[in-house]
Amino acid sequence: MNKKFLLKAAALMPDLTHQKVTLQDNKVLDQGESVVYDFGDHYVGTVTIDFGWAGSPQDAPALVKIKFSEIAYEVDEDTTDYNGWISKGWIQEELIHIDALPCKLKLKRRYAFRYVKIEAVALSQKYSLIINKLTADTVTSAPEFVPVVGNTPLEKKIDKIALRTMRECMQYEFEDGPKRDRRLWLGDLRLQAITNYCTYKHNDLVKRCLYLFAGTADKNGNISACVFTKPKVLPDDTYMFDYSLLFIPTLLDYLNATGDKQTATELLPLALKQLELAKAQFDGDIVRDSDKLGWCFLDWNLALNKQCGAQAVYIYCAKAAVKLCERLDKDCKAIKLDIEAKTKAAIDTFYDKQKGLFVSGADKQVSYAANIWMCLAHVFGEKERAELLDRLKYYDGAVKLVTPYAYHHYIQALVECRKSIDAHDIILSYWGKMAELGADTFYELFNPENPDESPYGSRAANSYCHAWSCTPSYFLRKYF
Amino acid sequence: MNKKFLLKAAALMPDLTHQKVTLQDNKVLDQGESVVYDFGDHYVGTVTIDFGWAGSPQDAPALVKIKFSEIAYEVDEDTTDYNGWISKGWIQEELIHIDALPCKLKLKRRYAFRYVKIEAVALSQKYSLIINKLTADTVTSAPEFVPVVGNTPLEKKIDKIALRTMRECMQYEFEDGPKRDRRLWLGDLRLQAITNYCTYKHNDLVKRCLYLFAGTADKNGNISACVFTKPKVLPDDTYMFDYSLLFIPTLLDYLNATGDKQTATELLPLALKQLELAKAQFDGDIVRDSDKLGWCFLDWNLALNKQCGAQAVYIYCAKAAVKLCERLDKDCKAIKLDIEAKTKAAIDTFYDKQKGLFVSGADKQVSYAANIWMCLAHVFGEKERAELLDRLKYYDGAVKLVTPYAYHHYIQALVECRKSIDAHDIILSYWGKMAELGADTFYELFNPENPDESPYGSRAANSYCHAWSCTPSYFLRKYF
Repeated sequence: MNKKFLLKAAALMPDLTHQKVTLQDNKVLDQGESVVYDFGDHYVGTVTIDFGWAGSPQDAPALVKIKFSEIAYEVDEDTTDYNGWISKGWIQEELIHIDALPCKLKLKRRYAFRYVKIEAVALSQKYSLIINKLTADTVTSAPEFVPVVGNTPLEKKIDKIALRTMRECMQYEFEDGPKRDRRLWLGDLRLQAITNYCTYKHNDLVKRCLYLFAGTADKNGNISACVFTKPKVLPDDTYMFDYSLLFIPTLLDYLNATGDKQTATELLPLALKQLELAKAQFDGDIVRDSDKLGWCFLDWNLALNKQCGAQAVYIYCAKAAVKLCERLDKDCKAIKLDIEAKTKAAIDTFYDKQKGLFVSGADKQVSYAANIWMCLAHVFGEKERAELLDRLKYYDGAVKLVTPYAYHHYIQALVECRKSIDAHDIILSYWGKMAELGADTFYELFNPENPDESPYGSRAANSYCHAWSCTPSYFLRKYF
Repeated sequence: MNKKFLLKAAALMPDLTHQKVTLQDNKVLDQGESVVYDFGDHYVGTVTIDFGWAGSPQDAPALVKIKFSEIAYEVDEDTTDYNGWISKGWIQEELIHIDALPCKLKLKRRYAFRYVKIEAVALSQKYSLIINKLTADTVTSAPEFVPVVGNTPLEKKIDKIALRTMRECMQYEFEDGPKRDRRLWLGDLRLQAITNYCTYKHNDLVKRCLYLFAGTADKNGNISACVFTKPKVLPDDTYMFDYSLLFIPTLLDYLNATGDKQTATELLPLALKQLELAKAQFDGDIVRDSDKLGWCFLDWNLALNKQCGAQAVYIYCAKAAVKLCERLDKDCKAIKLDIEAKTKAAIDTFYDKQKGLFVSGADKQVSYAANIWMCLAHVFGEKERAELLDRLKYYDGAVKLVTPYAYHHYIQALVECRKSIDAHDIILSYWGKMAELGADTFYELFNPENPDESPYGSRAANSYCHAWSCTPSYFLRKYF
């Protein structure tokens, strides 16, 4: 842990803007009855519930279940038997005893919600529970509302939802999702940061997050995929090949957006260190494949072979390192030579000339992710990339994308070879579909062909406001 | 509500004595695992649990179930499907999310417990929960420990348990039970008070409770069976024929124990008012029977006909009123005449000469309760009462007693006609049986023939430390 860096991060701790949202009611519940409140939009914050009673004096503690839901579907989902592999602890559901009514029940935890369901699980035969008022103390570190852009109502709707998603994830750090995991992941940060530069412009929050990652690098310089900040700053022990490397373009984007050479200079050695550390995963100039679950992320897809994509991410990040060095007048001849070698090896090893596509792993898997990242790494020129992406689109059996994170990279790859119409179509069909289904914020995971899908064994653990889904606001401003 | 009386009650609010009890541990729990802590005796108080974690950083909220149990049996009882008629809200079980470990979790509610079970319902695959320490902040308003009495080990054991029961129920008021209902009932108070006078001698606590009942009488002077004090003082809307009347002997006992004529004089008019109000339940000189559930208590037995017992309670309380008036130099000729009339009517109407027992209701039910109360009311002389109690003992099909409250009155009736051996036997066989079964405190309900019995549909809602069970400490000191 680098104390100096962590002190800088601490000094950049943002103030949260609080906004009270109140729902008045005089709902009377008997035992077993429930009521659902709709706050009308997605919020992050704490909630106070003003309870009273009717009938005889309260002769037994009230047992109340309070469930917070980001989307309408969650409200009535029975989570009793939830047995997904991701912790049940994420389900925003509390069982609380109230010994003495009337009572202003201030729930201490922070929730992400639009809907609040209150159920009188146990009262007594003699009294009823009254709900007088719900007050949400909502929080964000987003400085202000940003005007919505878009040429059509759907574009405007998409931008509004993406901006809301960003805003909700902007807390003391850029969180991946305010319901889950409520913390800073490098992959999410990179997309939040580029969207931030053209929307909320809370650049110090990006700076704080860069220092949190830098300050929690291990003694060898490895940057964790994720940083915890409560109860104290701590790196996760999850290290992913791509996430660590993506510190480099995240720093470059920050420098480009802010011109803050001091920070870039201070963090450059650690950024370059990621390239060096990544070499342990290479055999010669080729990334060694691995069976280790999650060794490289790319997309939330267990069927995806990561070898080729990892090689592409390396080249992409090395090129960002070159740009950083050039801006900061640092020598980078060795990196350039390395990029040449890795690019040649990538094409020799992974490019299937017959298919005209990159393939990955021992089984020579064709996937969107691998080909997209090879495009982003610019291993080919613009025209060849455009042709490759066309072939990919019509290739039968390519492993598809499952997360908005991966869709972001697809769109970026498309716009970088002037395939703006395709890119635009995907924004409208992917994010637009979520919007049409009633999203207030964009989801962590979305399969337009199966909107109920969850990799966690139950949708109850899904995050419906997820940072890596916010980039339509970036694309709409930058490219359309 | 009488403000003057309530101010007096408030001024007598006792200080609680706090005692810390700590269990050190370093127990590691994985998801789904649990551990049971044994505090070694029954306690009332709040609990703080010192949690840590092991393994990877805490990547999901911990969902922890914490269950407080008075007796060992409760610990592993599955309460998921509890559907007894008494509120599930009484079950001392919390489900709590811990967002950030390590954490000193201070549970705000007060519990009655010897055992604490902690279950890691949900963690994640990456970390374990550590329990470092449990600290109980135990409370009582009992001034100090009282030396145990008894001629045999079993008597000593019974007295120790009864004293513990008293102590645990002595809080800001004399509670009926610190698990349930955690409040002041007149029937319980009377037995706690007489036991208090010969044990803890916290006479101001009795005084406070008398003023709470007096201060919450309704505008006609009706004294409630029960008073709530949180969040503010409020009478229950439960009025029971016998409980209201028992305010009179409770006041008399207080005067006899303390000599506090000022309080007795101030509360006498309200005490006498209970006799007058009770007349509404009379047809001539006979209590009118009623189908209304709980119109008169006597015992926790729905099969018991209350008419005859109610008549006896009236006479018993009228006689206490006479003694109060005589001590306070008040005229009570009218009460004496009334007692004569009610006694004659009682014998004429309820006494079955053939059986030599009192019978109750249209079905002429023979019950222990009715006969016991007629003995306590001294409608016959000592010798006749002794003979009646003998006949009762051998009468086949008499409705039996189910609560320690009713057993208390049986023993009192026996000792008042010199049947001390029978009385002693019952203490040893009834309370002694609880002691043998491992009680730390005496129960609300106990059927020696079926220790698992509960009138609530499940033992989960039973109270295992209940004030009305404390009187062995009174009998052992006063009569043995």
